Formats: sequence, structure tokens, C-alpha cells
Amino acid sequence: MNGRPRFLTFEGGEGAGKSTQIRLMADWLAAKGIDVLLTREPGGSPGAELIRDLLLKGAVDRWLPISEALMLAAARADHIERTIRPALKAGKWVLCDRFYDSSVAYQGAGRGVGVTEVQTIQKIAFGDMRPDLTLILDLPVDIGLKRALAREGEKSDMEDRFERMERSFHETLRQAFLSIAEAETDRCVVVNADQGIEQLQQQLRGIVTDRSLLS
Amino acid sequence: MNGRPRFLTFEGGEGAGKSTQIRLMADWLAAKGIDVLLTREPGGSPGAELIRDLLLKGAVDRWLPISEALMLAAARADHIERTIRPALKAGKWVLCDRFYDSSVAYQGAGRGVGVTEVQTIQKIAFGDMRPDLTLILDLPVDIGLKRALAREGEKSDMEDRFERMERSFHETLRQAFLSIAEAETDRCVVVNADQGIEQLQQQLRGIVTDRSLLS
Repeated sequence: MNGRPRFLTFEGGEGAGKSTQIRLMADWLAAKGIDVLLTREPGGSPGAELIRDLLLKGAVDRWLPISEALMLAAARADHIERTIRPALKAGKWVLCDRFYDSSVAYQGAGRGVGVTEVQTIQKIAFGDMRPDLTLILDLPVDIGLKRALAREGEKSDMEDRFERMERSFHETLRQAFLSIAEAETDRCVVVNADQGIEQLQQQLRGIVTDRSLLS
Repeated sequence: MNGRPRFLTFEGGEGAGKSTQIRLMADWLAAKGIDVLLTREPGGSPGAELIRDLLLKGAVDRWLPISEALMLAAARADHIERTIRPALKAGKWVLCDRFYDSSVAYQGAGRGVGVTEVQTIQKIAFGDMRPDLTLILDLPVDIGLKRALAREGEKSDMEDRFERMERSFHETLRQAFLSIAEAETDRCVVVNADQGIEQLQQQLRGIVTDRSLLS
């Protein structure tokens, strides 16, 4: 039998393959008879989707970095309260494509709001909400950008905008994710995403199993 | 001649007459040859107006109190950076109908996010931005609600929603504004709003003059 429902988040820079890997993970869990909720940020609840629309459309400089960070926190509080917590309570596993570490990396480190500042906002917004496991898909910046740019046409304005930031921005992001993982080894695992889709998925499944999340 | 441009905010509960008084104040300043920008929150800049739309429409429980507080802070950061600061820099006086004290009172005290929590969010969002003078229009709750309810038809869903909260909510709001004034006597002045429009306006103009804001 499978144990209590778990909350897993997938993080990483552009082109790391999060969306593909999270879908494969959901398939694997579902095949074990686990009820899975697949969700993603920004968004994931009716209110959060409205905020997502505001964030993802429009000109590059439409939002100040601090406004972006605050709106993401507002959306996340809604997502947690109205989608994630109810799903866990109903016995579902929740797999989320990006979660609060992305705000720390993108707005805190990348856009200069400050890591501590974003952490403080998030602590006020949703207290001690914490994933059981965060899989950080790590990739050298040049490879990630090359992959991401190859995906033309399937991206939002926001993704596109971040991809077009200069190389140093993406290096900052990568280091921010690695710092988060270093500070929270009990929650985060960094995985080398520069490998084949199937191989990477096997590794991720191994981590879930090794951490006894299924029992 | 008139001195440096000033930033004045008007605060208070429902039915206190802020909008009327701020317009009369703007007229008075304009007659002195002062360039005045009249603005109001939530909103006041293109981005902040988009957030205002999200906040003001929809069902009563559409937003969690914390999401509301965060979105208001996001909008306010935008309003400050893109409307208020540029106007002051251009030599205009800025008169704002509601500003950060409303978030402390409504979301912090009234809706239970916490006064300290809202203050912390605002400090991160826009640091030491501070009005030169805040006029708090104070009114016994019963009188304010009676006035506000008489204005049927000219209100947003959000105003309507707050007006319909129970009496104790409005009493909490009133006390929150009075506490803010007590803590910041150099910035805030509490004025009894239970008097005639012209009489109240004369008193407000007197405060601006007495505080040497015109020189």
C-alpha cells in the first residue's frame, strides 16, 4: 500500500525539461494506483490563474520586480489554500511544476528583489508550507538556453522574456537554485538534467523510492 | 511662492467623505497656482489599475485576505514608482485617496493578516516612501455606515463588500486608523468627519497651512 499523500515540486532554469519529467512522474505514480494532481505555477487555482494572466501578458517592463514577486506570492497563497491543501487532504499526491523556489531564484536573485526579502514575503504569505521533496533539474546555462530557444511558439510572453535576458541572469538563477538545495538538503535534490529523458526520469523515480516517499 | 511639492494622503473608514474632501482640497491648491495630481488607490497607474480590476470584481470570498494584501502592495509599488514619484519630481503636489494606512487597517487589522505582517510587506515593497501629511477622517461607525449605505449604486463590489461586513469589523478599522495616528503624530492628523462638508474642508486646509506645507 502507498502511504500518506506527498507534495513534490520540480524546479530549475529554462530548458531543463521540468514539464516533460513531471508528466512522466505523474504517469508512473498513477500506474501504482496513486491519485495524482498535476499542477503548475504561476496559477493552479481560479484566482491564481487570473494573476497568472496579468503576469504573463504584456511588455517586458510591465511589472516592477517587486510587484511581480508580490503577485506571485498572492497567487501562490491562493493555489496552496484552494488547490494544493484540499488535494493533499483528499489523499492525492500533488506534483507542482515550479513553486516557491522559483520566486527566490527569479525575482529574489535574478531580478534583484533580494533572496531574504522574497523569503520574508513568502513566510508571511503561507508560513511553513513545505514540499516533501523538491527536484531541482540542473543544466549548464548554454545548454538550457539552446533547448529553450528551440521551443519557439509554445511559450508565454513571460517565459520568452526571461529567456531573452542576458546569460549572466541565467547563471545567477542556476546558482540561486544550487544555493537553495545546499541550504535544504533534507528537502531538495539536485539532478543533472543534461541526459536523456528516460534516463533522467529513472533517476527521479529512484529518488522518490529511495526517500521512502511511497511507503 | 509655494515650496516643494507635497504628498498628502486621505484615510478613513466608509462614509467619511474622503473623495469629496480631497477634490475640494485639490481645487483650493489649484487656485493657489499649484500643479496638483489627484489619484486614488487601489490603482493610479496602468499596472495598478489592472490589479484593481482583479480586486474589485467578483464574489465576496474571491481573495484570501493575504492575497488581497499582497496584490495591494504590488499595485502600490507600481503606483508609487510610475505615478507618484514622477509627479513629485515634476513639481506636482500629489493627493491620494487611500494609501498604505488603508492596507494596515483593512487587511492587517480588519481581515486578520496582522498589522506587523502588512507593515513588513510594505517595507519590502516600497521602503521608506512616506506621505508628508496623512489626514484621517474619523467618524463613529454607525454614522459612517449610514452615510455609505445611502450611496448605493456608485460603489464597487469591493466597497460594497466591506460595507456589508459586520459592525465590529468597522469598529476594528476605526481603532486601527486611530492607532496609526497615535504612533505617527508627525505624519498623521485625525479630524472629526462628523461635521458639514465646508466646515470640515476649512479645518483640513487649516492643517495644511499650520504645518507650513505651502511654504
